[in-house]
Amino acid sequence: MEKVNRISMAVIRRLPKYYRYLGELLDKDINRISSQELSNITGFTASQIRQDLNNFGGFGQQGYGYNVEELHKQLGKILGLERTYKAVLVGAGNLGQAVANYKGFEDAGFKLLALFDKNPKLIGLKIRDIEIFDVDHMENFINDNGVEIGIITTPKEQAQGVADKFIKSNIKGIWNFAPTDLKVPENVVVENVHLNESLFILSYMFKEKNRK
Amino acid sequence: MEKVNRISMAVIRRLPKYYRYLGELLDKDINRISSQELSNITGFTASQIRQDLNNFGGFGQQGYGYNVEELHKQLGKILGLERTYKAVLVGAGNLGQAVANYKGFEDAGFKLLALFDKNPKLIGLKIRDIEIFDVDHMENFINDNGVEIGIITTPKEQAQGVADKFIKSNIKGIWNFAPTDLKVPENVVVENVHLNESLFILSYMFKEKNRK
Repeated sequence: MEKVNRISMAVIRRLPKYYRYLGELLDKDINRISSQELSNITGFTASQIRQDLNNFGGFGQQGYGYNVEELHKQLGKILGLERTYKAVLVGAGNLGQAVANYKGFEDAGFKLLALFDKNPKLIGLKIRDIEIFDVDHMENFINDNGVEIGIITTPKEQAQGVADKFIKSNIKGIWNFAPTDLKVPENVVVENVHLNESLFILSYMFKEKNRK
Repeated sequence: MEKVNRISMAVIRRLPKYYRYLGELLDKDINRISSQELSNITGFTASQIRQDLNNFGGFGQQGYGYNVEELHKQLGKILGLERTYKAVLVGAGNLGQAVANYKGFEDAGFKLLALFDKNPKLIGLKIRDIEIFDVDHMENFINDNGVEIGIITTPKEQAQGVADKFIKSNIKGIWNFAPTDLKVPENVVVENVHLNESLFILSYMFKEKNRK
């Protein structure tokens, strides 16, 4: 089943969409779906869907289609959602608090253990029962609690310094919201959420569509 | 200069990165750069950079490289950043407030005029001097103020309804944070920020990197 080798990131980036749509089908008690029906829902072509899912062993059966529950479960496994990740967040300002409040954490198996900031006014406050600690205590906390994932919601000037501390503390995955590209060793993964780039893209598409 | 035809979205999505790095070079008073130096900074290959920028007419000169200020200015134009967009946001909870507080708005030429929510406790509050209004007044506000961009930070159940109201009010660009794909007519552009998908990708990459 787990023959996941050198799948392109373009394919990988479509998997969460399949996973989400399949979850919605399950909520509606729909248990069987063809690639054509999946195509109607997701907007990807049926052939693309079959090709994407074939990368992972292919869970469809000719003439039957896909078993929604099984496919959802397998995609969850592929995405690594069957296990839990311990996470901390640095930068507990507006963005950090919004991210900490984000309800999708638990669905994705992430357990946010603590927030960190250097602002004395924030230290001791709680977001969803998760306390904000002094950032000076971060490295000890990470080591004591076996934290694996670090989230950066600081201004960009502080981001690389935070990442360096994460890496020194043996954190292997970083979710980065700061508008900068982090330098990390090869064994650390970074997923960026760059809001400014997203807004620039919106601006571009808007301009292109409206310039006739 | 504006020979922007059928450029692939993959190229377009790299432009904000070039734009950001060039802005950082300008801040350091660096005014001339070769594609090789740009490659060292951005991580893209020099040949990719030349190819990308050639799509837009090519601003480099053999043996000289790129004029940083000129290239930054031209990319800003291409991205539509030389003008201002009037925007409103619906869903003024945690995520909405974080987005409203987001400092990158002005840099990208977006002017956030108002926030809307249906929660009476939020109505009348201000985020950065921007007032939260009752969502029932939204369509009038959009029409009266010539708003062009709508931002959705509601739960997914409300997102399509908000988008439909936007479209009825002649909004042509949507920045969507709700974890759902919006159905919009062909003349409306949508840029998604899907945090759950980003987190799933992080989970996947983390798992792949650590499963040896």
